[in-house]
Amino acid sequence: MPREEMMRPLIRGRGVGSRPLEASASDPGTPLVGILGTGDFSRSLSGCLVASGYPVVVGSRSPERSRALFPEEAEVTSQMEAASQADLVFVALFPEHYSTLAGLRQALAGKVLVDVSNGIQVNLCGTSHAEQLAAMFPESDVVKGFNTVSAWALQTGPRDGNRQVLLCGDSAAAKAMVGQLCRALGFVPVDTGLLAARALDLENLPLRLFPSWRIPLLSTFALFTAFYLYNFIHDVLHPFVMAGNSRAFSKMPVETVNVTLPAVALVMLALVYMPGSLAAALQLSRGTKYTRFPSWLDRWLGRRKQLGLCSFACAAMHAVYSLCLPMRRSARYKILNEAYKQVTKGVPDSWQDEAVWRMELYLSVGIMALGLLSLLAIASLPTVADALNWREFTFMQSGLGMAALTAGTLHTLLFGWDRAFDPGNYHFCLPPTFMVVLPLPLAVLCSRLAFCLPCLAARLARIRRGWEKSRHLRFVPPEEGGGGCSNGGVGNGRSLEDVSDV
Amino acid sequence: MPREEMMRPLIRGRGVGSRPLEASASDPGTPLVGILGTGDFSRSLSGCLVASGYPVVVGSRSPERSRALFPEEAEVTSQMEAASQADLVFVALFPEHYSTLAGLRQALAGKVLVDVSNGIQVNLCGTSHAEQLAAMFPESDVVKGFNTVSAWALQTGPRDGNRQVLLCGDSAAAKAMVGQLCRALGFVPVDTGLLAARALDLENLPLRLFPSWRIPLLSTFALFTAFYLYNFIHDVLHPFVMAGNSRAFSKMPVETVNVTLPAVALVMLALVYMPGSLAAALQLSRGTKYTRFPSWLDRWLGRRKQLGLCSFACAAMHAVYSLCLPMRRSARYKILNEAYKQVTKGVPDSWQDEAVWRMELYLSVGIMALGLLSLLAIASLPTVADALNWREFTFMQSGLGMAALTAGTLHTLLFGWDRAFDPGNYHFCLPPTFMVVLPLPLAVLCSRLAFCLPCLAARLARIRRGWEKSRHLRFVPPEEGGGGCSNGGVGNGRSLEDVSDV
Amino acid sequence: MPREEMMRPLIRGRGVGSRPLEASASDPGTPLVGILGTGDFSRSLSGCLVASGYPVVVGSRSPERSRALFPEEAEVTSQMEAASQADLVFVALFPEHYSTLAGLRQALAGKVLVDVSNGIQVNLCGTSHAEQLAAMFPESDVVKGFNTVSAWALQTGPRDGNRQVLLCGDSAAAKAMVGQLCRALGFVPVDTGLLAARALDLENLPLRLFPSWRIPLLSTFALFTAFYLYNFIHDVLHPFVMAGNSRAFSKMPVETVNVTLPAVALVMLALVYMPGSLAAALQLSRGTKYTRFPSWLDRWLGRRKQLGLCSFACAAMHAVYSLCLPMRRSARYKILNEAYKQVTKGVPDSWQDEAVWRMELYLSVGIMALGLLSLLAIASLPTVADALNWREFTFMQSGLGMAALTAGTLHTLLFGWDRAFDPGNYHFCLPPTFMVVLPLPLAVLCSRLAFCLPCLAARLARIRRGWEKSRHLRFVPPEEGGGGCSNGGVGNGRSLEDVSDV
Repeated sequence: MPREEMMRPLIRGRGVGSRPLEASASDPGTPLVGILGTGDFSRSLSGCLVASGYPVVVGSRSPERSRALFPEEAEVTSQMEAASQADLVFVALFPEHYSTLAGLRQALAGKVLVDVSNGIQVNLCGTSHAEQLAAMFPESDVVKGFNTVSAWALQTGPRDGNRQVLLCGDSAAAKAMVGQLCRALGFVPVDTGLLAARALDLENLPLRLFPSWRIPLLSTFALFTAFYLYNFIHDVLHPFVMAGNSRAFSKMPVETVNVTLPAVALVMLALVYMPGSLAAALQLSRGTKYTRFPSWLDRWLGRRKQLGLCSFACAAMHAVYSLCLPMRRSARYKILNEAYKQVTKGVPDSWQDEAVWRMELYLSVGIMALGLLSLLAIASLPTVADALNWREFTFMQSGLGMAALTAGTLHTLLFGWDRAFDPGNYHFCLPPTFMVVLPLPLAVLCSRLAFCLPCLAARLARIRRGWEKSRHLRFVPPEEGGGGCSNGGVGNGRSLEDVSDV
Repeated sequence: MPREEMMRPLIRGRGVGSRPLEASASDPGTPLVGILGTGDFSRSLSGCLVASGYPVVVGSRSPERSRALFPEEAEVTSQMEAASQADLVFVALFPEHYSTLAGLRQALAGKVLVDVSNGIQVNLCGTSHAEQLAAMFPESDVVKGFNTVSAWALQTGPRDGNRQVLLCGDSAAAKAMVGQLCRALGFVPVDTGLLAARALDLENLPLRLFPSWRIPLLSTFALFTAFYLYNFIHDVLHPFVMAGNSRAFSKMPVETVNVTLPAVALVMLALVYMPGSLAAALQLSRGTKYTRFPSWLDRWLGRRKQLGLCSFACAAMHAVYSLCLPMRRSARYKILNEAYKQVTKGVPDSWQDEAVWRMELYLSVGIMALGLLSLLAIASLPTVADALNWREFTFMQSGLGMAALTAGTLHTLLFGWDRAFDPGNYHFCLPPTFMVVLPLPLAVLCSRLAFCLPCLAARLARIRRGWEKSRHLRFVPPEEGGGGCSNGGVGNGRSLEDVSDV
Repeated sequence: MPREEMMRPLIRGRGVGSRPLEASASDPGTPLVGILGTGDFSRSLSGCLVASGYPVVVGSRSPERSRALFPEEAEVTSQMEAASQADLVFVALFPEHYSTLAGLRQALAGKVLVDVSNGIQVNLCGTSHAEQLAAMFPESDVVKGFNTVSAWALQTGPRDGNRQVLLCGDSAAAKAMVGQLCRALGFVPVDTGLLAARALDLENLPLRLFPSWRIPLLSTFALFTAFYLYNFIHDVLHPFVMAGNSRAFSKMPVETVNVTLPAVALVMLALVYMPGSLAAALQLSRGTKYTRFPSWLDRWLGRRKQLGLCSFACAAMHAVYSLCLPMRRSARYKILNEAYKQVTKGVPDSWQDEAVWRMELYLSVGIMALGLLSLLAIASLPTVADALNWREFTFMQSGLGMAALTAGTLHTLLFGWDRAFDPGNYHFCLPPTFMVVLPLPLAVLCSRLAFCLPCLAARLARIRRGWEKSRHLRFVPPEEGGGGCSNGGVGNGRSLEDVSDV
């Protein structure tokens, strides 16, 4: 991938013989940056600082041994030397070795210490490394930061995905100093508050595993299990118990999964658009968009993207499974046996017009639904989404999204055809799966239709432009953000408050 | 998606207890920024300005009520207060409430007003909001801008897709002041000209819906309809009219669509590479690359990417439809009936070598064509394309593109096999679809071969390096941009002038 | 695509009537930038400089003729004029016309010349254009750079993929000056060293064609050819030679390819995870992570991403080919003939439970393997990868990756079932393909299991946190980068040294 390609010169550049761009070094008041520790991170950091024109001094326990690891512009000396020379000191040691710094307390007094450490496993209670450091060096200003930045990002330069540097600390001045350094390296500093309040969170950040995906994935798995069991009882257990048909068990790996996946996909897709309806209903009843939603609804609205991608994944798997069906031995044997029957019965033509039409129709609608979901998935890629204006974003998420939900529901209805009315499809009195699935998407679609009624639509539009019932009654002319009408549309459309993009 | 994850600390950071990074605030001459209005946009803007170290004063009609909505570093006061204190004022009201600002005329005199408003529907004639504002405050310098920026982008910081801030206004100094502010927030200001000339365009920008996709999508739909009708008459109507075969109608949802899609895909792909041939021919005949192409050709060249993605979409759908064929009931019934025939006729083996080879061959070539198109589609993703150097870009678009066109054409030829010569395939004297499709791609392929002839190729290369016939005759040594040869290759390759990447 | 949409205003902005944002121009000491040459690149560069507030003077051989091509803020004059006025001069001519600049030697003395030129074909030995220029103008400081930047990037502004500007030159001051200019335009300057050492490399960079993909692609093709031949002999030649069955040849386009692709995919996937095992073994035996790996292992580790994507491509093609199987004429004829046999033999039911189960199982496992590989492929998209924290990255690459390898291996084992023990599958004494494929992935999986043994796992973890056997013996307390433990995890995980992400 080009990434490596672009890297190579950069890395070479770090080698002996390359010179820094003294750009900012020429500015007066560029702080002398010290780095304690000689690990991967301090090496990358030193290279990055040198390239941005900062004078760097590295404090090592064995300078002569470490010198070769650092760009030649960086001075590599003893920890004491480095600590006393530098204005701003990065502490790049393992927390468990902080104790070895005790002797530097005088040298570091009055200076800014940056704690870049991370825990090994999530540490929910207890004190953060940064607070331990602050306790060791009461005369220094400790700032927690850069721990969310990877040595890789330092080497290649920040990119859209990793441009933010989250900082916290008790001294605003110290944070400002570190913030300026961030900017000089091309990062975007974000102050998150005080050490006591945020250091622990920051140290846990790099250890978190897709937190925004937890609930969507769990609900997907839960739905899958539930529907799988239902289908197992309905399609496998029933024929076995009733007719002693043991062949039904061979449905388990593919066929049962393939009946379960579309059910999950459709329910998940309905769950993407349900919170929007709820929020709209709330706004209508409250007559304002400025009172916050209950937190569960906030969180739900904030997970629509993940829910949608889970739904797409299930739909795509369903497509693959379906396409596999005719390839299977079981399908082949069934055809052969049918052929045998047809011949022995002497039926020259077994064509059933209704069965043919039903399948042709639900196939084509299903393919359309999948196509629409694919477009939505592509549009949810960061770079693609970033380049959409608010109307395009709304059109994709709301317009195409509802079209996909409609197509998916239609696909299910056509698949069901008239089989809901055939008692033969009720095994153990359980209705066929598609009947269990349909209520939710149908409800969402109806609510959407309701919000399109002129009266409701107009009121909703007014509310989303900032109109408020309360005010209106007090005859106070509304006061609203011009940008709010459109930009806010996107802004909040993607944040937790607003639903105009649903 | 990680986006939310990175957001959370940022949002928390906005809450009470967080401090701004006074970074730039320390600089003298940082303007005091005023914001009139308390909507979504002004809230996000204030947070963003505060985080970048700007002193912010918000003018609200009900300060006490609004204070809670803004970061604590921002001063929230009356509109009059804010207007008189600030050096630079963002007007974040709905245009319809501009009138409520009449009283601030004195307070705002001599200051820079930024109009961030957007229309609700596209406003093609009429005056822009910015011009209305300028008329209300003749003593102030009005700059239109930030209306293309979403509150979301202000909260998360600019990304590649939304880094540009388009500005217009009549005072260069005012625009420079706003431009500097943009840079401080990490955006890239782009001056687009005077209010009268551009304000309306800017206000309409966020309301535009994929303008660059309109023509490609329309042509796709037009082609689809045309070919669908053709195939309907050829494959459905003809058997019905001639043989009264009503089963043919069941071909409509899937089979007819599946004959139409590849036709559209191939024609669209030919349309991607046709303008390149035309442009090359023009350059050859004119003997220079410096005279502009006719505007229709410019526009066509500028839409190649969209045309290509439409073609890919059709090809992908064609693949899915084809893979669905054997799964259908109709296919099953056909096999059963054939089996019946075979048995009753007593034919032990119905293998036809030619039919087998024909299908195996066009299948494998078709899969290759799809694979190549997929690579092209992936390479057209912003981040991937940005990381390609000009030669890689040319190789992908020109090399792989032509390979895909060749494979697609071959796929069609193999599908056609010898059936063009069987009068039985001419229904109502209409040739089979593949014969209607082939001429265009074949013409494009031939033109490309022609441009590979040494004589033409050499002349074309000279012209694209800036050589000009006219000059050449005047014996003036050419003068050309070194970068132009290669970088220009990419630059214009992706812009509207050049075709070196075709 | 939105890119064009955002472009339009920018381009308009370049037109007559637009004004520059004097932002930085107001700063004292903004250099007057000269550009020699009027090609595509110089036009884009001038527009970009003007928009960033630099005063620009363009030197043209025919100023009046060129003026219209440049933004009105740029002064277009004679080459001599431009050369004598400017502080910093971009030489944007074709190298072959450098001689025409001889007259400007006095005017350019003591100034910084930027050589932006590129070769037409890769120039491995010989002198670079930059060195030729330096030889022509001994009194000037020549800096090579911007040749890796496209006119397109200059027009649209830098993006993640193309933000770096690689520079080289002999004068640090000159490079610093150009570096500052880069920053002002939003690029990230990277000093790569001296002219003699690097200019040639830089000039060749834009001519390189996916260098990081060469070896992965070559190995893919090599494996494909080898396995294809093996399968051809095993499945096509053998039945023909033994039974004179000429129909077997019709397997070549699809079936043989479809047996070859999964073999290649699985071997490639094993090759992705093998170097990690080797590296871990080396680290364990050496007892340190600080001694470099042999260069072949370094290179191998650096190509894992490409190897993985090649493996995914083969797996995806395998899926498509497999789904095509039942659609083919040959499949249809086979079923018909089987039906005939079944009927004539009077077998009412040809169901074989084992064959059914075998296929259902390896199908479902295969689909899972493909799903996992798809997730990995998506996660390797730049924007997605950039947004992952180190633990998420490790989880994806190591966790999901091994899961995919396991699923792929299981898919193959289930496909093989008991057929390894049926001598009928040994044609010409050659075992069936799946047996040739399995050893490698099985070996990798076993090695991974070994590294999970508590003793080895613990030691490896210590080593990767910087513990060193040697040191340990000398009882020197280890000294390590705090960030190194986690960030370094990503940093080096993606660089060539470390394997913690494998």
